[in-house]
Amino acid sequence: MPLPSSSAAVPGTPPRSASLADVAALAGVSAGTVSRALSRPDMLSEATRTRVLAAAERLGYVANGAARALAMRRTFTVGAIVPRFGRSSFPTMVQALEATLAAAGYTLLLSAPERERGHDPALLRALLERGVDAVALLGADQPPAMFAALAAHRRPFVLLWAEHSAEGPCVGFDEADAGAQLIAHLAGLGHRSIGILSGSTVDNERAQRRLRGLTAAIARHGLQLHPAAVVETETGFAQGFAAMQALRARRTPVTAVVCANDYLAAGALSALDQAGVAVPAQMSVASFNDNDFSAFLHPPLTTVRLPIQEIGEQAGRLLLASLRGDAPPGNPLLPVTLVVRASTGPAPG
Amino acid sequence: MPLPSSSAAVPGTPPRSASLADVAALAGVSAGTVSRALSRPDMLSEATRTRVLAAAERLGYVANGAARALAMRRTFTVGAIVPRFGRSSFPTMVQALEATLAAAGYTLLLSAPERERGHDPALLRALLERGVDAVALLGADQPPAMFAALAAHRRPFVLLWAEHSAEGPCVGFDEADAGAQLIAHLAGLGHRSIGILSGSTVDNERAQRRLRGLTAAIARHGLQLHPAAVVETETGFAQGFAAMQALRARRTPVTAVVCANDYLAAGALSALDQAGVAVPAQMSVASFNDNDFSAFLHPPLTTVRLPIQEIGEQAGRLLLASLRGDAPPGNPLLPVTLVVRASTGPAPG
Repeated sequence: MPLPSSSAAVPGTPPRSASLADVAALAGVSAGTVSRALSRPDMLSEATRTRVLAAAERLGYVANGAARALAMRRTFTVGAIVPRFGRSSFPTMVQALEATLAAAGYTLLLSAPERERGHDPALLRALLERGVDAVALLGADQPPAMFAALAAHRRPFVLLWAEHSAEGPCVGFDEADAGAQLIAHLAGLGHRSIGILSGSTVDNERAQRRLRGLTAAIARHGLQLHPAAVVETETGFAQGFAAMQALRARRTPVTAVVCANDYLAAGALSALDQAGVAVPAQMSVASFNDNDFSAFLHPPLTTVRLPIQEIGEQAGRLLLASLRGDAPPGNPLLPVTLVVRASTGPAPG
Repeated sequence: MPLPSSSAAVPGTPPRSASLADVAALAGVSAGTVSRALSRPDMLSEATRTRVLAAAERLGYVANGAARALAMRRTFTVGAIVPRFGRSSFPTMVQALEATLAAAGYTLLLSAPERERGHDPALLRALLERGVDAVALLGADQPPAMFAALAAHRRPFVLLWAEHSAEGPCVGFDEADAGAQLIAHLAGLGHRSIGILSGSTVDNERAQRRLRGLTAAIARHGLQLHPAAVVETETGFAQGFAAMQALRARRTPVTAVVCANDYLAAGALSALDQAGVAVPAQMSVASFNDNDFSAFLHPPLTTVRLPIQEIGEQAGRLLLASLRGDAPPGNPLLPVTLVVRASTGPAPG
């Protein structure tokens, strides 16, 4: 259907968008003056600027973002690429980032691809071409092309859920400390043989760090970790259910199972429930995250509370400081806290 | 810290982004020709176009998205505004929308504000100013300013999780049928007195429709619904836990409780578990969504499976058809299916 090109107000047709020329006509100035009023207001007198802005407001003039971006070189948008959005804690982190930026007048544009496209430089290019002022990326393990594009465009950026990178600022927490707190708790309850349901460590630095932190703490406490007692799986409730069934089928003599996150732990608890294994009398289960559902599982879950919302907030503050031209605040690792609930208890026997 | 303005390759400084002039110099053409090769390739000879594109590729030239958007009037990005992202099924829906658009070469830019800003026309303006080609919005209850902005910019749009709107195409499911299936199941099990944990209906057409569908079906089956047996609450596990405690404190003689979604139901099951109420022997619990965790609750949850992923996919196909200039596919309501698990059983007594 051809769109009407007439600007006459025909009932039932959408109103034509006011143009820069319309604003100029109403304000009695040139189109160039309107453009400067929007992009370089310091070049105009206060009276002219006021007249142009009043006309623009009256006509409901929406500045063409592309044109304004060219003129101002500032779009007040921040881009983020956070893959694997469903079935994870990332929505909570991103919403906190969004709220922190929104409070300073910035809009967050999010690219939330499937996991395998999370490191696709084309997604970053799409954001940079839209003119975002800054960028947030998930994790430190970005391909060099990502950092090169950020450098070439001279955009401030932050790496979310990352401990350290030579490439730029990170916001994260001390993974080794999180693992150490959980294993110390289990060791204190008399557990000597531990199983692990790990996230898949293939191409996932976050899962790798978590598994390393746990195995190091298990070794430090002199506890046992059979190779057969470590099951790697994708994240999710169904995956945790299946992984616990697989772990039990291997008949390793573990009395406590540590899950890489609360999604896996919820599925694992369900598998134990269905198999008639009493938690924690026969088996303790503990995990990481403290998701919103974790206090309401059967039984309520012992878990290391990770600073998921705080990562989003801190990353937002860091980007805003960079955009203001301030030195970004230091980014010490955010604290983690063990939350003890009913899913862990003394080792049986 | 001032940024280096020299274009000399200094070791340790980021590479300067190639400019349009650089591409023109390498290709031996004018800057205008480079610009036309990118924006109006049909105006150039095949040989010239090939030379320019080869030069652009060689230099890693990233076209300035703002400039290109002005020239092409097509950005291959789609914007979406989906508020209240955490603690809901919306991430699953959005990821399906993203995947469908990505398969056709489109990038989805998502604005995921707090709930109260979900209808803020400023968010839509930010997306339109970034030059998105099309827009997806959550729900039919948008303020008139949203539809006016879409009409003024002549952008195709779709309303997600919506049954019908005079303003434009919707993708959703038959809410009344979903409620009818659930109530018929409970009536068939002999339940006569039903309680409801409803989402907050204030400013939420989706929660309003769900509650209306349930109360209509309850009336049709001649079942009882005491006003005191309806508790409204925000969505979430903790909220479901508290709402079930509140419902029990009112001592209405209900034998089955219908929850507005599986998040509330999971919290409600936890509250019953903690109070020593056997499910389903003493109380049946049923719900809507069939979230990924619902089969792993204690006991596994009877719930109406909603087409959450399908809404995202269908909306993506609809926008792509509009962008191709095809007539958008018809959008019949997507089907819902009752999934019976262990949380519902015969009415006690």
